[in-house]
Amino acid sequence: MAKTLVELLSHKRDGGTFTGDEISRLIQAFTSGEFADYQASALLMAIFLRGLDDAETVALTEAMLHSGKVLALPDVHGIKVDKHSTGGVGDKVSICLAPLVAACGVPVPMVSGRGLGHTGGTLDKLEAIPGFNVNLSAEDFAKAVAEIGTSMIGQTAEIAPADKRLYALRDVTATVECIPLIVASILSKKLAEGIDGLVLDVKVGQGAFMKSEAKARELAEALVRVGTRAGKKVVALLTRMDAPLGLAIGNANETREAIELLHGKGPADLLECTLVLGAEMLVIGGKAATVDEARSKLLAAIADGSARRTMEKMIVAHHGDPRVVEHPELLTMAPAKYEIHAAADGFVIGINALELGLVGVSIGAGRTRADQAVDHAVGIDLVKKPGDSIKLGEVVAVLSLQVGQAHEAAVARIAAAYTYGPTAPEALPLVAGRITA
Amino acid sequence: MAKTLVELLSHKRDGGTFTGDEISRLIQAFTSGEFADYQASALLMAIFLRGLDDAETVALTEAMLHSGKVLALPDVHGIKVDKHSTGGVGDKVSICLAPLVAACGVPVPMVSGRGLGHTGGTLDKLEAIPGFNVNLSAEDFAKAVAEIGTSMIGQTAEIAPADKRLYALRDVTATVECIPLIVASILSKKLAEGIDGLVLDVKVGQGAFMKSEAKARELAEALVRVGTRAGKKVVALLTRMDAPLGLAIGNANETREAIELLHGKGPADLLECTLVLGAEMLVIGGKAATVDEARSKLLAAIADGSARRTMEKMIVAHHGDPRVVEHPELLTMAPAKYEIHAAADGFVIGINALELGLVGVSIGAGRTRADQAVDHAVGIDLVKKPGDSIKLGEVVAVLSLQVGQAHEAAVARIAAAYTYGPTAPEALPLVAGRITA
Repeated sequence: MAKTLVELLSHKRDGGTFTGDEISRLIQAFTSGEFADYQASALLMAIFLRGLDDAETVALTEAMLHSGKVLALPDVHGIKVDKHSTGGVGDKVSICLAPLVAACGVPVPMVSGRGLGHTGGTLDKLEAIPGFNVNLSAEDFAKAVAEIGTSMIGQTAEIAPADKRLYALRDVTATVECIPLIVASILSKKLAEGIDGLVLDVKVGQGAFMKSEAKARELAEALVRVGTRAGKKVVALLTRMDAPLGLAIGNANETREAIELLHGKGPADLLECTLVLGAEMLVIGGKAATVDEARSKLLAAIADGSARRTMEKMIVAHHGDPRVVEHPELLTMAPAKYEIHAAADGFVIGINALELGLVGVSIGAGRTRADQAVDHAVGIDLVKKPGDSIKLGEVVAVLSLQVGQAHEAAVARIAAAYTYGPTAPEALPLVAGRITA
Repeated sequence: MAKTLVELLSHKRDGGTFTGDEISRLIQAFTSGEFADYQASALLMAIFLRGLDDAETVALTEAMLHSGKVLALPDVHGIKVDKHSTGGVGDKVSICLAPLVAACGVPVPMVSGRGLGHTGGTLDKLEAIPGFNVNLSAEDFAKAVAEIGTSMIGQTAEIAPADKRLYALRDVTATVECIPLIVASILSKKLAEGIDGLVLDVKVGQGAFMKSEAKARELAEALVRVGTRAGKKVVALLTRMDAPLGLAIGNANETREAIELLHGKGPADLLECTLVLGAEMLVIGGKAATVDEARSKLLAAIADGSARRTMEKMIVAHHGDPRVVEHPELLTMAPAKYEIHAAADGFVIGINALELGLVGVSIGAGRTRADQAVDHAVGIDLVKKPGDSIKLGEVVAVLSLQVGQAHEAAVARIAAAYTYGPTAPEALPLVAGRITA
């Protein structure tokens, strides 16, 4: 006889393993309301403490995926590949990466998120483009991917709704930091895009969700194992997130920086992050045999302007103003400027990314609750990064705020986020590891 | 800085220990609604898997106790002692025990429960007495205990409301069978009676909540340790519950059997159970120096009719008809009688108490949901018990149903609950263990 829902709860509580059918029944019952929130949260805690093996995680991914719609992309040809990042400070990679990879012939159907806590969100950054609508219908999304090669939308209510509700429960029940639950949450949303391959950017460091390399590697390995079992081509890169990525932290300034990268003017770390992820996508997408060949193609698509043309078309498809691509200075920042000055002679040896992310939230560039609005025009522009030499009193960063907005605390916090020393720090490579199936 | 509620959840999730203040904050937040049901159920699962130590269990008991009112018994003199049973089949001990112990001079303020699942409830049995009202006000309850020595009421909404809501959550989240949670639930309700001492009847066996003696002993020991730390005099007895206690299973017939015991006509096992528990109560209550002396006093209170007089007064205080005490035959059963016959010659070697409890539910003497009504007049009267010799075809039990009520399944199940053998089974003592501080 099939177990009751409460018996399934006891089963995991006692360290048992679920069959695929059992997980499917639980998620269906949760979706229908038969398995209540307070039962689901007990299950989440039991899973946190007892774990899920890979087969269970695949089943949970697929059950959440099928709690909603899988986007149909019937007219998109080729191997569809997306990128997912676990989130960092100054991480605007998606905005330049999607049109760049699409310009090289790999379709990129991308469903992105909003910022929450110290990490920003691609949707908020895109909305800094005048008129840009992240809420295209599934049909318009499919049409844009087919015709332009990419489109970037928000998670609709139809995509993995069980994941959305479970995530909200995890957030308030201390069950977020659980690798199989993180894996199923990420993959269920990404697989709902109808992709064939996925490149994962698992951030590691003080500005990342995963502070330790061991934990980040564990997550990356689980994502690759489970994604592969679910039939997708998956590669994960561990990339360092100690200092912010690039120079801009905010929304309009981050989008501007991403567009500038497509003009060949991106900061070195942002360019490197975009190229390493894009190269994996091109290889998975069958448009390059090696990552070296792929890097050449990506750089060519920047140099010949084809990435910018793709970005313009994508912006038009989203009802935005495409002039920002040739004129990124149109993405203006708030007028009240406050300079932050170096506290020593010597070198910048570190910038606390987590702290700058939190300052971003405090000035209104980010949010602490999902229902808060953001101000796209406020933010921080770094002038000096780790390894740069500085003189006492030199400008290291500029804070942009609205007129009349309190600035003292933010200026002090940004200043304190910088650390200085007499010698340049050792430059670590951006990529700390690469995980494949 | 004090931990947030979600941080408290993480703390227990990771195997931490709560301070008394932290437990108090959690229960207050749960009572006020700030800590939601779905958060509480995650906490319950974390507690199930990580445990609570004795200090935490005391704190939880007291926090739940103080989520409601503690009954004030200002005019009751002496050491107030109650009994709590973990529940069994045919367990009508409270009904004869409370007036018997009160007649010996120990005040017994008793808050009882209703039947749920295979175990019956004292309130349902008392309501078989015409007019008996289990819902006295707190004032009338206090007055009855002061004047008569005992009163038996139901748990009001004011008594340990946090326990009531937590119990409902445990029931649907597979977190019932957790010793510290069971201990805190039992003790919070009993301590709300304003008692000084408590005798616990922890049933063990196939008809009990705890099937194994090791598990029952673990529960009994935890109850005694925690109750003692909470400042009460506590003794626990482990008593066997393999066959039903006494001969009657139902409501009116169980109350009749309890009253008959006060006439000196109780079945041996029911009398023994009443005397061993009552003796502990008299010793705790300071009315006897030893359990042997206490047993003599209890038997004297049966023989001289003083227990029956106390019971009559208690029934009057509850607006019931006191004539049932001298005429227990007034507690009539339903008219349709069905005999169950022995399937072999030899001896009854066992009666499956759990199965008879479930038959009781199926015929309407019990309930599976808290909002169901019971029929006080239906039930099972055993004629033969384990150890009795029988002849093939002899009547072993009688089922009483309402006219027209389906009987075939119940008759078959009762017949199948009896097992027979060629020799009498070894008679085990009722008491399997005694635990004191």
